Amino acid sequence: MFAQESWVFLLLAAWFILIPASGTRYQANWESLDARPLPTWYDEAKFGIFVHWGVFSVPGFESEWFWWHWKGQNPPDQKCVQYMLDNYPPGFSYPDFAPQFHAQFFDPDDWADIFEASGAKYVVLTAKHHEGFTTWPSSYSWNWNSVDTGPHRDLVGDLAEAVRNRSLHYGLYNSLYEWFNPLYLADKKNNFTTQDFVLKKLLPELYDMVLSYKPELIWSDGDWEAPDTYWNSTEFLAWLYNDSPVKDVIVTNDRWGAGCYCKHGGYYNCADKYTPGELPKHKWEKCQSVDTQSWGYRRTMRLSELMDLPSIIQDLVQTVAMGGNYLLNVGPTPDGMIPPVFEERLRGIGAWLEVNGEAIYSSKPWRIQTENATVPVWYTSNSKYSSVYAVFMTKPTVYTFHLSEPVTAESTTVTLLGNPEPLRWAPLHPRGLILLLPELPQTPAQAWILKLDGVK
Amino acid sequence: MFAQESWVFLLLAAWFILIPASGTRYQANWESLDARPLPTWYDEAKFGIFVHWGVFSVPGFESEWFWWHWKGQNPPDQKCVQYMLDNYPPGFSYPDFAPQFHAQFFDPDDWADIFEASGAKYVVLTAKHHEGFTTWPSSYSWNWNSVDTGPHRDLVGDLAEAVRNRSLHYGLYNSLYEWFNPLYLADKKNNFTTQDFVLKKLLPELYDMVLSYKPELIWSDGDWEAPDTYWNSTEFLAWLYNDSPVKDVIVTNDRWGAGCYCKHGGYYNCADKYTPGELPKHKWEKCQSVDTQSWGYRRTMRLSELMDLPSIIQDLVQTVAMGGNYLLNVGPTPDGMIPPVFEERLRGIGAWLEVNGEAIYSSKPWRIQTENATVPVWYTSNSKYSSVYAVFMTKPTVYTFHLSEPVTAESTTVTLLGNPEPLRWAPLHPRGLILLLPELPQTPAQAWILKLDGVK
Amino acid sequence: MFAQESWVFLLLAAWFILIPASGTRYQANWESLDARPLPTWYDEAKFGIFVHWGVFSVPGFESEWFWWHWKGQNPPDQKCVQYMLDNYPPGFSYPDFAPQFHAQFFDPDDWADIFEASGAKYVVLTAKHHEGFTTWPSSYSWNWNSVDTGPHRDLVGDLAEAVRNRSLHYGLYNSLYEWFNPLYLADKKNNFTTQDFVLKKLLPELYDMVLSYKPELIWSDGDWEAPDTYWNSTEFLAWLYNDSPVKDVIVTNDRWGAGCYCKHGGYYNCADKYTPGELPKHKWEKCQSVDTQSWGYRRTMRLSELMDLPSIIQDLVQTVAMGGNYLLNVGPTPDGMIPPVFEERLRGIGAWLEVNGEAIYSSKPWRIQTENATVPVWYTSNSKYSSVYAVFMTKPTVYTFHLSEPVTAESTTVTLLGNPEPLRWAPLHPRGLILLLPELPQTPAQAWILKLDGVK
Amino acid sequence: MFAQESWVFLLLAAWFILIPASGTRYQANWESLDARPLPTWYDEAKFGIFVHWGVFSVPGFESEWFWWHWKGQNPPDQKCVQYMLDNYPPGFSYPDFAPQFHAQFFDPDDWADIFEASGAKYVVLTAKHHEGFTTWPSSYSWNWNSVDTGPHRDLVGDLAEAVRNRSLHYGLYNSLYEWFNPLYLADKKNNFTTQDFVLKKLLPELYDMVLSYKPELIWSDGDWEAPDTYWNSTEFLAWLYNDSPVKDVIVTNDRWGAGCYCKHGGYYNCADKYTPGELPKHKWEKCQSVDTQSWGYRRTMRLSELMDLPSIIQDLVQTVAMGGNYLLNVGPTPDGMIPPVFEERLRGIGAWLEVNGEAIYSSKPWRIQTENATVPVWYTSNSKYSSVYAVFMTKPTVYTFHLSEPVTAESTTVTLLGNPEPLRWAPLHPRGLILLLPELPQTPAQAWILKLDGVK
Repeated sequence: MFAQESWVFLLLAAWFILIPASGTRYQANWESLDARPLPTWYDEAKFGIFVHWGVFSVPGFESEWFWWHWKGQNPPDQKCVQYMLDNYPPGFSYPDFAPQFHAQFFDPDDWADIFEASGAKYVVLTAKHHEGFTTWPSSYSWNWNSVDTGPHRDLVGDLAEAVRNRSLHYGLYNSLYEWFNPLYLADKKNNFTTQDFVLKKLLPELYDMVLSYKPELIWSDGDWEAPDTYWNSTEFLAWLYNDSPVKDVIVTNDRWGAGCYCKHGGYYNCADKYTPGELPKHKWEKCQSVDTQSWGYRRTMRLSELMDLPSIIQDLVQTVAMGGNYLLNVGPTPDGMIPPVFEERLRGIGAWLEVNGEAIYSSKPWRIQTENATVPVWYTSNSKYSSVYAVFMTKPTVYTFHLSEPVTAESTTVTLLGNPEPLRWAPLHPRGLILLLPELPQTPAQAWILKLDGVK
Repeated sequence: MFAQESWVFLLLAAWFILIPASGTRYQANWESLDARPLPTWYDEAKFGIFVHWGVFSVPGFESEWFWWHWKGQNPPDQKCVQYMLDNYPPGFSYPDFAPQFHAQFFDPDDWADIFEASGAKYVVLTAKHHEGFTTWPSSYSWNWNSVDTGPHRDLVGDLAEAVRNRSLHYGLYNSLYEWFNPLYLADKKNNFTTQDFVLKKLLPELYDMVLSYKPELIWSDGDWEAPDTYWNSTEFLAWLYNDSPVKDVIVTNDRWGAGCYCKHGGYYNCADKYTPGELPKHKWEKCQSVDTQSWGYRRTMRLSELMDLPSIIQDLVQTVAMGGNYLLNVGPTPDGMIPPVFEERLRGIGAWLEVNGEAIYSSKPWRIQTENATVPVWYTSNSKYSSVYAVFMTKPTVYTFHLSEPVTAESTTVTLLGNPEPLRWAPLHPRGLILLLPELPQTPAQAWILKLDGVK
Repeated sequence: MFAQESWVFLLLAAWFILIPASGTRYQANWESLDARPLPTWYDEAKFGIFVHWGVFSVPGFESEWFWWHWKGQNPPDQKCVQYMLDNYPPGFSYPDFAPQFHAQFFDPDDWADIFEASGAKYVVLTAKHHEGFTTWPSSYSWNWNSVDTGPHRDLVGDLAEAVRNRSLHYGLYNSLYEWFNPLYLADKKNNFTTQDFVLKKLLPELYDMVLSYKPELIWSDGDWEAPDTYWNSTEFLAWLYNDSPVKDVIVTNDRWGAGCYCKHGGYYNCADKYTPGELPKHKWEKCQSVDTQSWGYRRTMRLSELMDLPSIIQDLVQTVAMGGNYLLNVGPTPDGMIPPVFEERLRGIGAWLEVNGEAIYSSKPWRIQTENATVPVWYTSNSKYSSVYAVFMTKPTVYTFHLSEPVTAESTTVTLLGNPEPLRWAPLHPRGLILLLPELPQTPAQAWILKLDGVK
Repeated sequence: MFAQESWVFLLLAAWFILIPASGTRYQANWESLDARPLPTWYDEAKFGIFVHWGVFSVPGFESEWFWWHWKGQNPPDQKCVQYMLDNYPPGFSYPDFAPQFHAQFFDPDDWADIFEASGAKYVVLTAKHHEGFTTWPSSYSWNWNSVDTGPHRDLVGDLAEAVRNRSLHYGLYNSLYEWFNPLYLADKKNNFTTQDFVLKKLLPELYDMVLSYKPELIWSDGDWEAPDTYWNSTEFLAWLYNDSPVKDVIVTNDRWGAGCYCKHGGYYNCADKYTPGELPKHKWEKCQSVDTQSWGYRRTMRLSELMDLPSIIQDLVQTVAMGGNYLLNVGPTPDGMIPPVFEERLRGIGAWLEVNGEAIYSSKPWRIQTENATVPVWYTSNSKYSSVYAVFMTKPTVYTFHLSEPVTAESTTVTLLGNPEPLRWAPLHPRGLILLLPELPQTPAQAWILKLDGVK
């Protein structure tokens, strides 16, 4: 009878047996796991694209939380309720949207071209959002995945290939909880003293996902209702770091159970759209959506609700200056297209990075993050180029530009990125310098970078 | 860690502990289980209605095996393939039919009225066919059940109430295997050395079903690809007979694993539409569909493909004469209606049983099952009425009717059911009798019954 | 400028010019038109099949008047309103049903086989019901016909061929008014002082229909809201009788304008399901639907709402005895199937007519239509066979059968149709006869016919 | 009988009677009609928004000519054919798209806000494109209009109100021909010697449209297959100019029959996207779509296929400099939204016109349209401001700017629009001037205007 037990079990058993014999392996506790160094590719990448795509893209109403707002929360969101009343027959349920997730125009190469053109170095796709629908053919999500219904394609796998063909890193977003999964709801009702959902659904699926797609990043989410002991997070991560096929390159975030975020795991996301006040001690990432109202596609997007290019660049710069990575989100349509207004933003970033990327990629925070002498300035540094970069996003009204923090030497040189001519400058006392700006080139990004070599 | 194991496990563990202490409990082996006496209601009922209803009712093409014929078998059924090519967009998949399973006219009381009027004493509904779609809200079949999509109703529960309000017994059909369930397919690929499907899906769901609906009959099916040891059939049946809430009334059939049928379990179905040549030693049941081409609704039913009333009555009579129960199937529409041509058959049977039921209900096979002196005759007997019944379905061309098997006595009386007048008869030697028929009443059923009291 | 006028105009002009030259032509007034003798095929045919098929078959709710009950009448039918509220999105309109009129199983040969097997001699299909949707590709009903949407087939044309291949006559039902046609509604608002609808839509279409399909019968309907002068009925009929390609064979009914029915036109339908009390002086037709609640397909048909075979036969016999034709209606499904319960009725009639048809086809009313000596009897006569037929539909309780009306002669012979043996009979005084019935054959139709040769 | 003739007829008759009595009325011939002065609002408006919205927006594939490319042209467009094969069931027809034209988010006030913000002074909506579907409840287009199906709204009427509430002028696009209207196809087959389509459909509908919505502009199209005599264009225009409720304000274009364009009617559109080489003698309009591949919404729009803001501004400026109006097109989604990328373009134009509008609105071409001394320059003039405007769209590399055409006087002043400071300049001989540019303000539109007062 015991022979009939599932492999998860055997694996966990094997684990306990193996541990004592191996001092170099991570143990299934936070102390051990948190000590793992982050693979270096991640900090060097700096800029990634987040893609929210799922059944929620079909209604495309309010946000990717539509199902919850309509049917889950109490009281429900009246706009969602009314929208369904106005436009669908009474019995229409959320799963009924799935067959309309056609993705008929989805060309992963087109997407990857745009992502590459944006200058991003990694791409993270929702493999499963809180709705539980997997965008890959999960055996544990029968008839609720993108191959059995809707697109009838392995979206995760198809995008993987296109992204990797362009030497971008590939990550997968995975929600631990599933709002309406009855197994989850039963465990929740039992105050998470049972783990039916975790053992029969979540973990088998997660292992499969890692083995099938070998993601270099797992963007975990949906952890907050239950402790990491319910999710078996530390066991999973120990396997991921020790034995999985991606053990050397995998990067994870910090959403692995109530109380974990900003505290345990790989890099820290903390809250959505987290913006630290001072330089964090731990590697972090800010995720942000071009559509400020939603991560998933919204049919009713208005221009005023979207970030414009200068705001995005500013956000990216400040994040990098503070040691973070910037993960910018776009929501494709259920047809499989990236809306042109998003494409425009992404190509705009890429054009700016084409000129200014050396201040971003592989950069490190400088000793000072920001100052405001002439106009607000954000600093980065790049040991590869031995340079300090001062980014400003306000056009000064005068041509003399004052920086108060850098300590110059005689050999110091100053240039404007994109402009071959060295700039004339003079030192200030006790430190800082004054320089003469050239005419600033027109750029839709409205951000310019002074490069200082030979300063401290 | 063990505390996280599922309850099935604990229950089975408890089981092994408890067994030695209890001599009266059934054990999880066939010897013990097969020894259980069949609850008496079943043999007395004689006639039941089988209802095949599911997503397969939506295409309603060829049969309820549509999905398999289209996508499973090799080579596929070209008619099914062509039908889909001709009428659906290329990407259309079987799960996409589910939202069209509207059941908008389903009135369980209407159905139960018709079933009651048919004279049936039990009703068996497909709780889950090979397609895996449950017609009840199974937690283990999320988004692939009749509450999450399609009807948005608990069909099993709603019919249960209506059927029981009319004092009919209620049974549930459950397919062990699911053609396309990826967990099942993986186990199958592993030659059934793994049991992911059984432990994560099948058994938890089956326990839930029994606990939720307390069926009095489980019509198991879809067992043939794997041995009962894969299905954990004996463990399940032991629980069902010992500890389930229906342990005293539950009746099961014989489809619990490859090689089981006609050999183990409760009553025997043997093959579909099984018709024994001589009196079987074990209680059995013949299931038969009014639509000879399909158990599920077919949109293209032609009259010539349907059983007419006399054929059904004949089948019922022969089955009962041979000790069997007769389970007659109808396939409702996806709208929730029983097609009028089926209703007509069912009410026709009821009208016939109204007059002739005493020869059927609670009857026993007689010492002889059939003879053919004047016309073919089938016998039943009824200890409650101390009577022997001779059923004939061919109108004799003469009024003298010869029965060669009954041994008469002087006190013997003979009547035609539905006719109050005793008939004139004379004994024959060495046995048998000759009697004078009255004019036979017109009946769409074309079957008449002679009741013989005081014969041997 | 006049050259731009429509051809209808020129034709009518030509008509007035031609009339004086031709004394044998029908004139566009009722006196002339009513004097036309009915083509003989019609009275000989006696029994026809009516087929109501259209977009109304898609909802299949309540009846083919669904649209009107839902949206037209004041107040609307609450059951229709509620059904739509319960099952469709708020904006759903009746035209939105059209794409679901798939007719994917429509095989005109199958239909025609069934119609032929029923013994019917003509078939009448709805070419356009009050909904205005044409089941043929009318140029005047763009995107609201069965070729532009829904079946994407010429239903009228396809059935025509199959029906005619079996030597059945073919007729077309055409509604003059269209409930919601805005041109009609505007004319109506103008108290029918304008004829936009008639001149731009109705008549051009009707001419096209006749020229395209050459129907032998036009079953006009929907006339009652306006006078025949609005519809230009007499002009149309004059053309039909004088110049159309079907002028020699065409049969029409009496619905050509308010006040027309039972008074003008070809044969009389009078009201739906009209049943005269005594022998009418003018050829008439009773139309009747197997489904007593609807002419179009109803998804919710219950057996109790359908005519059974004996009732239909009784209705047919009484109609023919009273000099009428009997047009029995069935409503096919939107899939293109004739429901099996209808097929059963139709084949049942055919089986009865196989034996008893000589009393029906080409028969004439006898001098007496009905009497009730032993049981109720209806008479027909057939000059071809010089016979009088007495039809009875109640099984007498005795074998002596009394007919009080026929005047026998010595040479008189009496037989039961389907029984080769002549029956023994004796004359009664002053008239009538008594005869000895044989055992009546079982027949689902429950109607038997005595054939009397050599009576008056 | 003649009393039954349609009102079109009577009206035309009346027309011929009235003409001699009135010397001031336009006659139904081009000489008379072409002599009508264009209402002044139109030339002053300069910039309008064109909106292509219809059933074609639902597939949104390739272009608004989808139906024709798929089913009309020979051979068909293989991309369209393949798209339908890949994504729709075999029988799917173009009219079947109509129920999916939901327009559920259509808020005419939102649209009108965007149009107003763009600086446009008129808006032209497709009341009926070549598909024949009317976006208003035309009595002559039953079940093929936006009230009977799809949006179930009067789109033309709803937008009219919103547009006029913002004091914008409102025009309607109307296609004369309808690709697949069977009445049109029959006339075409008859080499346009019959006018069934024109008399039964086109003209009654067009009169209704004018009477119902009182458009100030009719953008006629789809005229090219037949002569204006077929369309009865001159009769219609004579009524429009003499007797319609918009006779004083109505503006029309030049597409009224084969050979008409660039020759007869109101202003000239000539071919789509027409760009004249030298100053035209007749008022004209250039229409251009932001999506260079389609006038209707396309689901597959890529950024590279869209006009960017500088190109649009350049196009607008050149058109106005050449005496034309600029009608810029956007295609809303079938949901009723203006895609954000279009909104961005429109608001960008508005922001530029906010500063630079005085060189555009109510301007006149100057004596010279363009020159290229420093960089290419386009001229406009504005008698209201007695100014000449020189627009340039290339940033000069030096600050001295040379204009060779204006003849200065001592009192001449030069300013850069948006910059309050007068610029320093010096005259050149024999004419022209040189001026000193200030730093050019950043503007996404990349176009700057020099205003010259007191030049010739």
